[in-house]
Amino acid sequence: MKKLNLIIIVVVLAASSVQAQISHELWLGEQTPAAVNVVSVKSSPTLEIAKKELQDRFVGTPGSTIRILVDKKGNNDLKTDGYKLDNNTIKAKSDIGALYGAYALLRRQQTGEPVSGVVSNPSYERRILDHWDNLDGSVERGYAGNSIFWHGKDSLAVLPSDRKLWHEYARANCSIGINGSVINNVNASPLVLTDAYLQRVKAIADILRPYGIKIYLSVNFASPVALKELSTADPLDGKVISWWSQKVKEIYSIIPDFGGFLVKASSEGQPGPQNYGRSHAEGANMLADALKPYDGIVMWRAFVYTANDEDRAKQAYAEFTPLDGKFRDNVIIQVKNGPIDFQPREPFSPLFGAMKKTSVMVEFQITQEYLGHSTHLVFLSPMWEECLKSDTYQNGKGSTVAKCTDGSIYDQAHTAIAGVSNIGLDSNWCGHPFAQANWYAFGRLAWNNELASEQIADEWLKLSFHKDAAKMKNNLDYAANWSRHFLQPVKQMMLDSREAAVNYMMPLGLHHIMSANGHYGPGPWWAPKGVRSDWTPPYYHQADKNGIGFDRTIQGSGAVRQYHEPVLSKFNNLATCPDKYLLWFHHLPWNYKMKDGHTLWDALCYHYDKGVKQVRSFQKIWDRVAPFIDSSRFLEVQMKLRYQCANAILWKDACLLYFQQFSRMAIPYDIERPVHMLKDIRADEFKVRIK
Amino acid sequence: MKKLNLIIIVVVLAASSVQAQISHELWLGEQTPAAVNVVSVKSSPTLEIAKKELQDRFVGTPGSTIRILVDKKGNNDLKTDGYKLDNNTIKAKSDIGALYGAYALLRRQQTGEPVSGVVSNPSYERRILDHWDNLDGSVERGYAGNSIFWHGKDSLAVLPSDRKLWHEYARANCSIGINGSVINNVNASPLVLTDAYLQRVKAIADILRPYGIKIYLSVNFASPVALKELSTADPLDGKVISWWSQKVKEIYSIIPDFGGFLVKASSEGQPGPQNYGRSHAEGANMLADALKPYDGIVMWRAFVYTANDEDRAKQAYAEFTPLDGKFRDNVIIQVKNGPIDFQPREPFSPLFGAMKKTSVMVEFQITQEYLGHSTHLVFLSPMWEECLKSDTYQNGKGSTVAKCTDGSIYDQAHTAIAGVSNIGLDSNWCGHPFAQANWYAFGRLAWNNELASEQIADEWLKLSFHKDAAKMKNNLDYAANWSRHFLQPVKQMMLDSREAAVNYMMPLGLHHIMSANGHYGPGPWWAPKGVRSDWTPPYYHQADKNGIGFDRTIQGSGAVRQYHEPVLSKFNNLATCPDKYLLWFHHLPWNYKMKDGHTLWDALCYHYDKGVKQVRSFQKIWDRVAPFIDSSRFLEVQMKLRYQCANAILWKDACLLYFQQFSRMAIPYDIERPVHMLKDIRADEFKVRIK
Repeated sequence: MKKLNLIIIVVVLAASSVQAQISHELWLGEQTPAAVNVVSVKSSPTLEIAKKELQDRFVGTPGSTIRILVDKKGNNDLKTDGYKLDNNTIKAKSDIGALYGAYALLRRQQTGEPVSGVVSNPSYERRILDHWDNLDGSVERGYAGNSIFWHGKDSLAVLPSDRKLWHEYARANCSIGINGSVINNVNASPLVLTDAYLQRVKAIADILRPYGIKIYLSVNFASPVALKELSTADPLDGKVISWWSQKVKEIYSIIPDFGGFLVKASSEGQPGPQNYGRSHAEGANMLADALKPYDGIVMWRAFVYTANDEDRAKQAYAEFTPLDGKFRDNVIIQVKNGPIDFQPREPFSPLFGAMKKTSVMVEFQITQEYLGHSTHLVFLSPMWEECLKSDTYQNGKGSTVAKCTDGSIYDQAHTAIAGVSNIGLDSNWCGHPFAQANWYAFGRLAWNNELASEQIADEWLKLSFHKDAAKMKNNLDYAANWSRHFLQPVKQMMLDSREAAVNYMMPLGLHHIMSANGHYGPGPWWAPKGVRSDWTPPYYHQADKNGIGFDRTIQGSGAVRQYHEPVLSKFNNLATCPDKYLLWFHHLPWNYKMKDGHTLWDALCYHYDKGVKQVRSFQKIWDRVAPFIDSSRFLEVQMKLRYQCANAILWKDACLLYFQQFSRMAIPYDIERPVHMLKDIRADEFKVRIK
Repeated sequence: MKKLNLIIIVVVLAASSVQAQISHELWLGEQTPAAVNVVSVKSSPTLEIAKKELQDRFVGTPGSTIRILVDKKGNNDLKTDGYKLDNNTIKAKSDIGALYGAYALLRRQQTGEPVSGVVSNPSYERRILDHWDNLDGSVERGYAGNSIFWHGKDSLAVLPSDRKLWHEYARANCSIGINGSVINNVNASPLVLTDAYLQRVKAIADILRPYGIKIYLSVNFASPVALKELSTADPLDGKVISWWSQKVKEIYSIIPDFGGFLVKASSEGQPGPQNYGRSHAEGANMLADALKPYDGIVMWRAFVYTANDEDRAKQAYAEFTPLDGKFRDNVIIQVKNGPIDFQPREPFSPLFGAMKKTSVMVEFQITQEYLGHSTHLVFLSPMWEECLKSDTYQNGKGSTVAKCTDGSIYDQAHTAIAGVSNIGLDSNWCGHPFAQANWYAFGRLAWNNELASEQIADEWLKLSFHKDAAKMKNNLDYAANWSRHFLQPVKQMMLDSREAAVNYMMPLGLHHIMSANGHYGPGPWWAPKGVRSDWTPPYYHQADKNGIGFDRTIQGSGAVRQYHEPVLSKFNNLATCPDKYLLWFHHLPWNYKMKDGHTLWDALCYHYDKGVKQVRSFQKIWDRVAPFIDSSRFLEVQMKLRYQCANAILWKDACLLYFQQFSRMAIPYDIERPVHMLKDIRADEFKVRIK
């Protein structure tokens, strides 16, 4: 018996290692390559990567030839990073463009898309992952293990395992077009600017460079003071200007292609120019001037709000629009998609399109801070697509957020887009196997801001779960079954998943009603004495016996005035305000009659209930696909969907029972009753419940 | 503001005290009495109670007269405890019969049943509550607070609050015909036989006496040894015989109408005659001989099984049937309803009807040890009705368990029935407001073992929730609404509740798969090394890759042979074995085809799922009746139904996920997927989860 047990253990270990490998490979799993020739006149580290990828993964006729043609002067329909694919030929203006073309060729081969007659240019010049990684190795709002970049101050030595991981990270990013990484938290430690840390930054940059990825750093605005080198960080002080100028020079001496700085200033306790009576523009410009000689940029976050009586949703706009035109041309204002903070649903930030003489970039959040961490399956692409396609009307109809930020409308010196990363040391990178799809989707949208989420989900599923393109090609039955029984239902689940989360968390325009610290479970009641009100959910839902919702109409806080007509009137008027933003802009009585005839209270109940039912339907979809995928990912996702469902029920029960105290109306009898007591949920508030 | 707050607090406190009072009153709430004359020729403490109850609670024409006629020699259609009701006259052979008649008259008035032309006799001579109350005040398997009889050895003094409670207890029991109380645990402390404790027993007996209730005590068979008075408890030893004889004499000198002993001997670690090589008959008869001079009886439990290879379900029958005819006529063998131990569903014990020359009594369990404690709403009357109406065929067709125990068939010297009490110090007596219905139902079935559960539920609801008979009588609209919107749906909920519990806990004949210590949640996996197998769930469900169920057929353990034909063949043959006992008697493959065409595995899944759905429907029923009852009971039951639903889901998930490891079949896709992980449930095994 002993021998047999041993064999079983070995087999199990081997299998689980294979499965971990599948997860670790992301969307770049093994192919069955043909022996092809890859021909390139030029050679460079970047082109060598392209060659190797094609040799390792191109599926075609053995002996056929793939040509790589880099021509800096020709290809006038291409931007620097763009590529063309034609008859096994990849054309580009740059080596990195050729590498992007190689990855696109391989991707298209696997997903069954045309590989000829393709011309592709990126929507944004800079496509950046922001890592909220702390130097001690922890990751703020990270749910996939510790940092891949930092292990704490006693572990600055670069190990072979570090290099291997950074290589894999760079390759994955490059394959979807990401070309920048901010490798430390926006709540930045000043230590990152000291030599010991900069040496590690250099090691990372050296590995990322051939993949076309630049390193950026988040900087603490008060760094010269915090490092005890100066007594002030006033951006107009000559010593401060000189300090930053020297620091930037030092950085470029170590990392010649350094990208620039990301700054969270005068926001949530971070120091900034306002500590010295200076404006955001004065602060940003001082840093921009230091970076200018090296073509570095400043990404200056607009995520600012203070504890005053003004509606928090209005503050970024109020602070920044008066500064339009006052920023240096190497400053980009980085604006979160919505006016509050990465909630499951927000209307677009009114800053988009409103700053007409300033470069503005979108900041999305890939890590699921408010969307179920790495437990809930939520495909975020539809949320980002919704934002990018929102029409601001700032320059007439068609002034979408995408067009207001990608240079189509305004003459921006730089265009960029950022996503707050969900990457950590977990062997599957992102915690949840499907969270990889959000990393993938961010890259794809950063490259092409008109892509549809359906297309992205289709690509990702084919790349991540279907490794046998040849089999699919040659066996129509197999391909049809796989498509009907796996691809279609799972894709639909992905596409529905964000709306499901909105339904069971914060439907009808509700926002910021999550638990106080974890940001995972529900916490609409949380409002201890002494905590600033704009950090408490009751500030946002405003529920009382008369009704619920934040009145941001012209009669209310007036936040709606920050939108350009006709958006302003659309949101301001109950008859035209979309249900999905209803309680974002309006405070309405519980018996307010919705367009479908339900009372507001009933509609709220039905939304929460629908969210739960949607997750239950996801569970059924998933259970059915077991035969089509590896058991490791099947079981992991099955487990996470169970926790998600239990958590969705908790959200529903908590919110309905809490709001029912005000509405005093019955939960409609065609939906399930709560299975929790509000008092129990509140007692457990600070524990992470249901994973 | 301060003043207003105070007023609100006072109002709330007053209201909650009123509500606690409602719960404490049980089925004997206040009436609006007319000023009636109650006339009785005789007088006695018992008749004074009858008079007062009628004066306080009779609803009729003011000035009318109610006569009480006690005639020991007449009324030949009445047993000692029986009564007749005719035109405001109560006739009886005894004072207690008259008191039962008074309570019946009041009950019938409130429930709208005829109050004239009524003749009623009890089915059993002795109708007994067994309290598993320990002398330290705790209650074994009690879920309604500590003992109402015992507070520990330092609190033997009888307080006014004790007397008040015992009065209320006696009145409630008397109102439903209960006439005996075993006031200490069957796992008995020998100390109860010492003078200090007997003095407290006397105080209780003195209060219970006018209500016609006798006290019984559980005794430890080794008491003379445990009290260090003898070195043996051998029932054939002269010193032992003499010791018990003296002890019984002492008891009767203190409590002249003492009822007798209840004995758990040679069972689950309790000492018994087998310790001295003597039979159960020799042990019981020794005690019976001591009690005989005082008309005391011995209730000797048949709940015996030892850790051997024999099917536990067979052991009581194997042990006791050879002793048939060897017991004294003041011994009654007390047999649990099923062969194992108060499971949510068991077939009747084969001992019923099999002991033709011995008095046999049924032991039911009112406290919900295996049926959700005081959290789950489970009306047990249908379970008991199912047992009482089960046909043993031991004396031909119609030999029901009821008739085999109430003297209809066999010439028993004594008839009795016992219920293990669910009473504790909780202000509502039983923990769950609806658990009171089980106390009520036991009393009513003990009086009339042919009553239908529907009738009992109807009575209890009318008595417990509808205090305004006059209003109901004079306002047909009110009565109709109350009946349609409260009585009918809530009664249906009660009647369905036990089958729901079977569905979500142990359907299709499964049994004894609860968690090891708590007996509350699921634990089908529990089988630690070193624990005797007949205490572990896998012994009972026998699940393996081939199937599930305990083979007790003729080919299996042969337990089915203990039943009389045609029951034997009915249970033994798959074609005739009822689904509800299927896995009790048969081990069947997972893909066994059920009568409805489902596989066994699918059927199991559908049963668990149905149980969950049933509890959800109970929640809806309950939420709708809020307008008809006091908010205190409404909210308490609403809360408990939530926990019950959550716990039902836990049961379903645990059992399906556990058994799925063997079946390796998919949960049908038309039912909800699990929301728990088996590993999490198992990790939490010893915590009481979900109340």
